[in-house]
Amino acid sequence: ANDVLSLGFRGLYVDMNAISPQRVQRIADKMAAHGTRFVSGSIIGGPAWKPNTTWLYLSGADAQSVADCFTAGPLETEVLGAEIGKANALKMCFAAYSKGTTALLSAVMAAAESLDVRADLERQWSRNGSTFADEAAKNVQQVTAKAWRFSGEMEEIAATLGDAGLPSAFHQAAADIYQRMADFKGADPLPSLEDVLAALIHKSDKL
Amino acid sequence: ANDVLSLGFRGLYVDMNAISPQRVQRIADKMAAHGTRFVSGSIIGGPAWKPNTTWLYLSGADAQSVADCFTAGPLETEVLGAEIGKANALKMCFAAYSKGTTALLSAVMAAAESLDVRADLERQWSRNGSTFADEAAKNVQQVTAKAWRFSGEMEEIAATLGDAGLPSAFHQAAADIYQRMADFKGADPLPSLEDVLAALIHKSDKL
Repeated sequence: ANDVLSLGFRGLYVDMNAISPQRVQRIADKMAAHGTRFVSGSIIGGPAWKPNTTWLYLSGADAQSVADCFTAGPLETEVLGAEIGKANALKMCFAAYSKGTTALLSAVMAAAESLDVRADLERQWSRNGSTFADEAAKNVQQVTAKAWRFSGEMEEIAATLGDAGLPSAFHQAAADIYQRMADFKGADPLPSLEDVLAALIHKSDKL
Repeated sequence: ANDVLSLGFRGLYVDMNAISPQRVQRIADKMAAHGTRFVSGSIIGGPAWKPNTTWLYLSGADAQSVADCFTAGPLETEVLGAEIGKANALKMCFAAYSKGTTALLSAVMAAAESLDVRADLERQWSRNGSTFADEAAKNVQQVTAKAWRFSGEMEEIAATLGDAGLPSAFHQAAADIYQRMADFKGADPLPSLEDVLAALIHKSDKL
């Protein structure tokens, strides 16, 4: 945003980063001081290859003008009103649960490995035909390639929850977990579950 | 355990509390010093009304003797070996995820309410026919009646993960959330979702 301002940009600026409502408000204030129109946005979903899978949420006085730019493509848009930061609040809450649970799951599986009860935990999770143990392993493996950039997002979520009067510690812990996975950036093929858990436990030994 | 020792008990003692492996080891040491045989146990599942739903895990040298006491009933038993605390490690890891995610979900929904994006979050969760939003509300309402006793369990889990070299903050936050719900102890009928979220937000205002 600072780079854009330094170039003398005076048009309509949209910030779609996964950052807290407070932080986007600070950017909006800076933009307003330079006379630049500002809209806050957030994206929920993966890359938008087909309709009805990925949403761009927008908020701010000029939100509809931005939404109008995307009518042709597969990206769905939804305006959340005129208040800057609303789109961010939604993104933070959505990711707080989805990425928070994956971090928690990773920590739990690493703890079970460290305490030598992982096979027992997986057996308990598999009672009565449940496929949860297999899904859990896949989730933990799959998150590794993107974990390096989730760590900062977890810090933003921690700030968002803290500001809303709720505990920020869930996501401080999630940031820690994703940080420990950062070396798997872009991993292809994905690491084995054993390698991920070893990294989570090993990284903690360094503390 | 101290009460039992003070009565001069010298038989076979089983501790089935939801406590950390380290804490149960301290109890075991105390028992051993008094010549009392000790088994550590943990229960996963609700009250055992029918077979194949509730498991009693046992660990310690005399674990099989304890398991033999339950062959007639609907409670399933499983011996996890001779090492004291193994049954506890499994329970802590299992509850770390199941009760940790419910606490996280409660915090997220309260944050969304506080930030005035709860309806938007529920709409996003309900995309493509998902019933997650309804299930989430039910989970948060249903946990309230038991939350008063989950708070201490989350502290034990935080200690367990911390000792295993993983972040303890997830469950410190979970203990905080369940503490904020403690006034709903035994609630019947269950409180409305709005009342639960108001309590979570209101309690934080006092800090």
